[in-house]
Amino acid sequence: MTRGERLAKVVTERELDQLFVSDLTNVRYLTGFTGTNGACLIGGDELIFFTDFRYTERAAHEVGPEWERPEAERELIPQIVGRISGRVGFEDAHLSVRQLARLEAATEAGVELIPAGDLVEQLRAVKEPGELERIAAAAELADEVYRWALERGMVGRTERDVAHACEARLRELGAEPSFPPIVAAGANGALPHAEPGDREIGAGELVVFDMGALLDGYCSDCTRTYATGEVSDDAREVYELVLRAQMAALGAIRAGVAGKEADAVPREMIAEAGHGDHFGHGTGHGVGLEVHEGPRLGTTSEDHLAENNVVTVEPGVYMPGRFGVRIEDLVVVTADGHRNLSGLPKELQVVG
Amino acid sequence: MTRGERLAKVVTERELDQLFVSDLTNVRYLTGFTGTNGACLIGGDELIFFTDFRYTERAAHEVGPEWERPEAERELIPQIVGRISGRVGFEDAHLSVRQLARLEAATEAGVELIPAGDLVEQLRAVKEPGELERIAAAAELADEVYRWALERGMVGRTERDVAHACEARLRELGAEPSFPPIVAAGANGALPHAEPGDREIGAGELVVFDMGALLDGYCSDCTRTYATGEVSDDAREVYELVLRAQMAALGAIRAGVAGKEADAVPREMIAEAGHGDHFGHGTGHGVGLEVHEGPRLGTTSEDHLAENNVVTVEPGVYMPGRFGVRIEDLVVVTADGHRNLSGLPKELQVVG
Repeated sequence: MTRGERLAKVVTERELDQLFVSDLTNVRYLTGFTGTNGACLIGGDELIFFTDFRYTERAAHEVGPEWERPEAERELIPQIVGRISGRVGFEDAHLSVRQLARLEAATEAGVELIPAGDLVEQLRAVKEPGELERIAAAAELADEVYRWALERGMVGRTERDVAHACEARLRELGAEPSFPPIVAAGANGALPHAEPGDREIGAGELVVFDMGALLDGYCSDCTRTYATGEVSDDAREVYELVLRAQMAALGAIRAGVAGKEADAVPREMIAEAGHGDHFGHGTGHGVGLEVHEGPRLGTTSEDHLAENNVVTVEPGVYMPGRFGVRIEDLVVVTADGHRNLSGLPKELQVVG
Repeated sequence: MTRGERLAKVVTERELDQLFVSDLTNVRYLTGFTGTNGACLIGGDELIFFTDFRYTERAAHEVGPEWERPEAERELIPQIVGRISGRVGFEDAHLSVRQLARLEAATEAGVELIPAGDLVEQLRAVKEPGELERIAAAAELADEVYRWALERGMVGRTERDVAHACEARLRELGAEPSFPPIVAAGANGALPHAEPGDREIGAGELVVFDMGALLDGYCSDCTRTYATGEVSDDAREVYELVLRAQMAALGAIRAGVAGKEADAVPREMIAEAGHGDHFGHGTGHGVGLEVHEGPRLGTTSEDHLAENNVVTVEPGVYMPGRFGVRIEDLVVVTADGHRNLSGLPKELQVVG
């Protein structure tokens, strides 16, 4: 069964006649289409893909034969309106208020437009074998760039220089960064989303290094924290705490576990060690076509893990004005545990 | 007067008490903030900027002192709700249906949420001197990459190789591509948004080459069509037609002219030559923080050009299955004409 056909079943289960998919990543997932103007209508026996004349030829190559491809203008909504009927779900997290207003204004009486949540995102969260292979390949390539960066050393270089060199290396190897890499040394490491700056990396610092590859459409995500020489006892203690918490979190990963539960495991360990206020983000998130997707591992998550989810496991402790530690693996959720896609060591490594 | 203060005046003129700005590019324009979670509330005497703990330190550097910066959680809406009152405009083209529903659910009685169109975009369309300088610098850098690419030649290389080499060169020079460059040879040139492929560029073809730089936050956009050796009479005729149409369109650019009128000038010339069906896109669009912004030059545009708009002028003719021609300059609109930021020749150039 194709993705579109699987979604059509979900649409019926939700008692919708059709689902209007407007988010481009969701459109790409369903159809393979990589252009920047496209939408789908799924329901009953119909799978319809809309794009405009600029992308007609590309769509002919990319979009599977199960999709009907009517001609459309650049403004897709009028074409779509001509094909909708009954109870029509839309992606309320993506459709703008203005787009909905246009849709409503053009829609005939009898059509009911219904916010339909994240139906495609829910399919996307469970990866197919081909998707798992692609994500694993992206992770492996990023690992290679980590090793390459460690060989080149860090002390005396700026954060920005290290980050840019890694971006260039990812590209040389045929990938793209899945997000701008973070290289945050010393006190900058305490800012979970620091932008690499002109500060020279000194000896005896902790360096938070967060990087992923985008390869063949799929993302990876990984963080390691390195020491540039001997670090303070405090820094070493926090590192060991985060590592224990990260291992414990990995141990909690299994199909059926709530995202909230998996998050609680490292959070409680970190809180018991007196650092509850220093872990201000979630434990993890799904990764796939996007570097942040479902399911979420966090205090307010309502997700449950399922087999073949791909999630990060990334607790951290951030000591304002001093240093930060984050350790992040990317794992595939299995029936009784996980398979780790990150191949890098996690004991504190010293780099020159 | 700062941008925030100028916007506050517009908000009052529109009889709003406040404007809620959620689009990140608009937030960046108003405040300078470059993180990925931020919003503003503008109105009366208040300029309020919201971000979460991850970006507190960055915001302290980037956001001007005229902005109040309350502490906020990652989910900004609860914090924002606590500060809104009266008639509150929101950016209906950007806010998702779900975000509006959350805002409505949390809002107290007496608050009226009003779709408020593109108020920030309208400010953004008129560039300040510092913005014009940045766009000109991006255009100049892209010109340099065009010249570099011509020296290296095209025949025997794949479209993708030429495009990737230019991307790498843009990065070497300290910029980023403002969009993935288009290099489309022969029949591929007839697809206005072709993705560079593995096809080798042959001798005697037309090559549509569309590229821009993103430098210091601002974009440029330029297209040239080159000949790899002698081309058919047909191809040369179409080239000359597009060049005449493009020059005529440039001649129509002036503050006060309707986007629709400026579009009609090349469109009529191309139609008179029998190619009306082969020019399927608009004549131009604004360029700034984004590579596509207002004002638009097209058949359905309701914009009027104003002094210090920066727009592309890019008619094209696309012969399906054969070749395409597009010639695009980036210009600043002046009181009595335009200033061209593109420094490349436009007579048909032959490259090896």
